[in-house]
Amino acid sequence: MPGTDDRMRTSLGKAELDRVLVRGRDLTEELMGTVSYTEMIPLMLLGRLPGAGERRMLDALLVSLVEHGLVKPVVTARFVYSNAPESLQAAVAASLLGAGSRHLGSSEGCARVLQEMATEMGDNLEGAAQRIVSEHGATRARIPGIGHRTHAGGDPRAERLLVIARETETHGRHSWILERVAIIAGERSGRPLPVNVTGAIAAIASDMGYRWEITRGFALIARTLGALAHIQEEIDEPLADRLIRQIQRSVEYDMT
Amino acid sequence: MPGTDDRMRTSLGKAELDRVLVRGRDLTEELMGTVSYTEMIPLMLLGRLPGAGERRMLDALLVSLVEHGLVKPVVTARFVYSNAPESLQAAVAASLLGAGSRHLGSSEGCARVLQEMATEMGDNLEGAAQRIVSEHGATRARIPGIGHRTHAGGDPRAERLLVIARETETHGRHSWILERVAIIAGERSGRPLPVNVTGAIAAIASDMGYRWEITRGFALIARTLGALAHIQEEIDEPLADRLIRQIQRSVEYDMT
Amino acid sequence: MPGTDDRMRTSLGKAELDRVLVRGRDLTEELMGTVSYTEMIPLMLLGRLPGAGERRMLDALLVSLVEHGLVKPVVTARFVYSNAPESLQAAVAASLLGAGSRHLGSSEGCARVLQEMATEMGDNLEGAAQRIVSEHGATRARIPGIGHRTHAGGDPRAERLLVIARETETHGRHSWILERVAIIAGERSGRPLPVNVTGAIAAIASDMGYRWEITRGFALIARTLGALAHIQEEIDEPLADRLIRQIQRSVEYDMT
Amino acid sequence: MPGTDDRMRTSLGKAELDRVLVRGRDLTEELMGTVSYTEMIPLMLLGRLPGAGERRMLDALLVSLVEHGLVKPVVTARFVYSNAPESLQAAVAASLLGAGSRHLGSSEGCARVLQEMATEMGDNLEGAAQRIVSEHGATRARIPGIGHRTHAGGDPRAERLLVIARETETHGRHSWILERVAIIAGERSGRPLPVNVTGAIAAIASDMGYRWEITRGFALIARTLGALAHIQEEIDEPLADRLIRQIQRSVEYDMT
Repeated sequence: MPGTDDRMRTSLGKAELDRVLVRGRDLTEELMGTVSYTEMIPLMLLGRLPGAGERRMLDALLVSLVEHGLVKPVVTARFVYSNAPESLQAAVAASLLGAGSRHLGSSEGCARVLQEMATEMGDNLEGAAQRIVSEHGATRARIPGIGHRTHAGGDPRAERLLVIARETETHGRHSWILERVAIIAGERSGRPLPVNVTGAIAAIASDMGYRWEITRGFALIARTLGALAHIQEEIDEPLADRLIRQIQRSVEYDMT
Repeated sequence: MPGTDDRMRTSLGKAELDRVLVRGRDLTEELMGTVSYTEMIPLMLLGRLPGAGERRMLDALLVSLVEHGLVKPVVTARFVYSNAPESLQAAVAASLLGAGSRHLGSSEGCARVLQEMATEMGDNLEGAAQRIVSEHGATRARIPGIGHRTHAGGDPRAERLLVIARETETHGRHSWILERVAIIAGERSGRPLPVNVTGAIAAIASDMGYRWEITRGFALIARTLGALAHIQEEIDEPLADRLIRQIQRSVEYDMT
Repeated sequence: MPGTDDRMRTSLGKAELDRVLVRGRDLTEELMGTVSYTEMIPLMLLGRLPGAGERRMLDALLVSLVEHGLVKPVVTARFVYSNAPESLQAAVAASLLGAGSRHLGSSEGCARVLQEMATEMGDNLEGAAQRIVSEHGATRARIPGIGHRTHAGGDPRAERLLVIARETETHGRHSWILERVAIIAGERSGRPLPVNVTGAIAAIASDMGYRWEITRGFALIARTLGALAHIQEEIDEPLADRLIRQIQRSVEYDMT
Repeated sequence: MPGTDDRMRTSLGKAELDRVLVRGRDLTEELMGTVSYTEMIPLMLLGRLPGAGERRMLDALLVSLVEHGLVKPVVTARFVYSNAPESLQAAVAASLLGAGSRHLGSSEGCARVLQEMATEMGDNLEGAAQRIVSEHGATRARIPGIGHRTHAGGDPRAERLLVIARETETHGRHSWILERVAIIAGERSGRPLPVNVTGAIAAIASDMGYRWEITRGFALIARTLGALAHIQEEIDEPLADRLIRQIQRSVEYDMT
C-alpha cells in the first residue's frame, strides 16, 4: 500500500484519556500490581514478559550493579547535589554520565564482540573464542570483559552471576564463548584474566536476547538507585564540602 | 571520644578485595540471586528489606511510571541519541533532566506538604487535610498531587495505586490525608480534583517511610527504563530526524 | 486576523539553503569576522548589539567566572571524563549541572530580588535597599549576593566588577541598591557583608537589561571554558583516579 | 628529588584568600577589564594570550556556531526547561549532550585525522591529503569535515571561516590539507564535497594549536549561548507543550 511506510510509529506506549497502553497491554489492568519492575525490562526492550528463571537472573544482574562504594559516579552525584539541591534529577543525571566506556559501559564493547562473533561463527563456539583472543592479540587491544584491577583473583560478582546463569538456565552461547576467552587469554598472557562483572553482564544479557547497543542500560538502571542512596546520605551526613577542601589541599597549584 | 565526630563516613557500601559489602550484607552471598532489584530500594534508602506487601506496592509504583507515550523526556532521549549515539548514558541522562518540578518531580512538592503536615498535626488527620486545602486556597496556590490535565475524570494509575496500597496494607496516614484533600478541594472548587499519579506516589512513598526529598527518585528509576526503550526503538525506527524537520516546518521564523 | 496568534514562532534564527539568519542578520555577511562572541550575547538575549562600554563590562563578567581552582564542578568534569572519554560534551554538561542554587546560580536569586524591588520601588532606591534588608531580616533568610566564605574581607572579583561597571557606565540602579544592601546589612549584623561575585554579576547583569531568570547563564558560558581546560589537563596529568582513591581511603565504611 | 613526581598538580588556577590566580596571572589585576572572554580561551587551553588576528579568527569560529535554527539541541533545551524551570543549568546541559559525534562533535574526528596525518607526513601536505582520501575510500568511510546535507553547494559558514583564516593569517597546514581533501574527494566521487563548518573549525582550530580531543569544545561554548537564547524565548513564547502535542498526534501507536 503506497505511503504506509511513511507513517511515523512507536510500539511502546500511549496515554489515552482513560487508560495507558504499554506494549499493547492496559497498564493499570494488566501490569500494575501484577508484574515487577524487573519484568518490565524485557517487556519494554524485548516485547515479552520473562519466565521465572530469566526474572531471577535479571534481578541478580541489576542487584550486582547498585553499589560499589565511593566510585567516581557517586561522588559526582554528591558534588552536584551539594551545589544544586533544587534538582535531584540533575545529580542523578550527572552520576549516570560517568557510566562511560571505561567504567560500567565497557559491557557494551564486550557484548558487541560476543554478538558479532557468535553471529558470524554460528555453532563453532570454540572457534569464536579463539578468534576473539587472536584478533585482540594481533592488535594488542585489551579484550573487553576480562581482567579487573581491584579483584585480580576474580571478581566475586562475575563468578556469582555466571553461577546464577547456570541455575536459571539463562547461560548460553555468549557466556560460553566469554568463559573460553578468559581461559585462553589467561593461558597466553601467563596471568589470570577472569571474566569481570561487565563481561559477565554483557554475556548474560546477550544470552537473554538484549542487543549490545543497550547493555550499558542495566548499569544505568542499577546506578540510578545507587546515586539516589548517596544523595540521601549526603543530606544527612554531608561529605561533598569536606572532600572538595581535601582535594584543594592535596593538589598543588603549579604556576610554571 | 575526641575526634570521632570528625571522621567522614558512609554506611552504604564498600568494595573490598574479595567481597563487596552493601548495607552490611555480603553482596554476592546474601543479595545476588536472593533479592529483587525492587527490594534493593528500601535496603539502600531505608536500611532494611521490605515485606511482601511493601514489595508489591513498590513494584506497582515503579511500573506505573515506566512509559506514558511520547512525552518530552523520551523525545529528548531520542534527539540526544540521534546526535550522539556513542553515548547511551548521555541520552538517558538528558531524559532524566526533564523529570522536573512540572513533570514527574511534582511528587516531591506533594510529599513535602504531606510529611510536614502529618508531623505537625499528629493524629488529627482530618485537620491536616483541611489545613492543606485552606492554606493553599489562601495563597491561591495549586495543591500539588491533585488534578490532572489529560485525565480530568481521574487518573486510572492513581486510582489503581491507591487500591493496591489498601490491598498491601501500605496505605497509611499520608494517603488518607491526600484522599481527603482531594475531596475537600474538589467540593470547594466545584469540579473534581482527584488524586493524580504523582500525588498517589508521593502519599504512598511517604506511608512507606521515604522522605520527601527523594520521592522524585522513583520516577527517575522508572523512566531510565522508559528512555532506554525509546532509544532502542530509535535505532530500528528513527523518528528524531523526521520530527525535527516537522518542527522546523511548523515554527515560523519571525525576523521582526 | 483570525488564527494569526496560533502560529508558532521563533525570532532567533533560521538555516536556509544558502544563508543562515541570526536575529534578522546574515550570519556570514554581517556577523562572522565582524562581531565578537561576547557581542553575540546581547544580540541573542536582548536583540541588539552592545556599545563599547557594555562589551567591556560583559567580557569582565565572563572572565571573572572562568576559573576558581578545584571547585566541585571542575572535579566533576574530570571524574566524568575519566570514565567516559568518548563524550567530551558529557563531562562539560555534568560540570554545568553543578552550577546550582548554592554555587554560581545564586546570582539568579539575587537578580530576582533586585529586579522585583527596583520595579516596585521605582526611583526610591534607598527605600528598595532598606526593604530588602528588613524583609530578609524578618524571615532570617540570608540575603543573596552579599557575604562570602573564602573571601570574608571582600571578594576581589566583586570589587573589580563594580569598578569596571562605573568605568563603563553600565553601573545603574540595581548595582546601587545592592551596594546599599551590603552596607546596611553589614551595619545591622556587626560584621562586613560585602557584595560577592554572584551579587555583583546579578546587579550588573540587571543594569544591562538581562532578566533574572537567565543571569545564571553567564556562569554557564564561562564555566564551559573552565571545564574544558580541566578536562584537557586531565588528559595530560590525570588526577581523577588518584583523587577517588584518596577519597576511598578517607571515608570510613560504617556498617552500623 | 624523591617523591616529587607523586605530587598532584594543576596549572590552571587557584583561589587564595585575597586574590584569584589564573594561569599565573592575577585575575582581577591582570585579566578582568583587560582581556575578552575569547582571549581567555587560548590562555586556558594553550597557556598564552592570542594576537589580534588569532582573536578575530576565534571570535568568528564561535560566532558561526551560536545559532542554526530549531535543531535538535535547542528543542531539547526547550523541552527540559519546560518540565524543569527550576534548573536553567539542566536545560543547557541537556542541550550540550546533543553535541555528539553526528552533530557538531564531528569536528573532533576531522581534527584527529588532520593532526595525525600532518604529524606523520611532515611537509608533504599534498601526500597527506591524498592519503586521507585513499584510506577513507578503501574502507568506504565517510571523510569527516567535508559534505553537508542542507548546504549541498557549500556551507557559507565554512567558506567564510576559511576566508577569515587567510585574512588573519591563521590559515595553516591543516586547513591546506582539508581543502585539498575536499577537492580530491569531490573529483573522485563526481559530486561536490566541500569543506563543511565542522571541518573548517577542525582545520582552523588545529592550525591555531588546539588538540583534536577538545575541538568539540568550541561548539560547546557557542551552543551554551544558543541554548540560553532559546530557553529565554521559551519563557515568553512557549513552544514545548505545543510541539510535543504535535508530535503525539503525528506518531502512530502501533500495537502489533
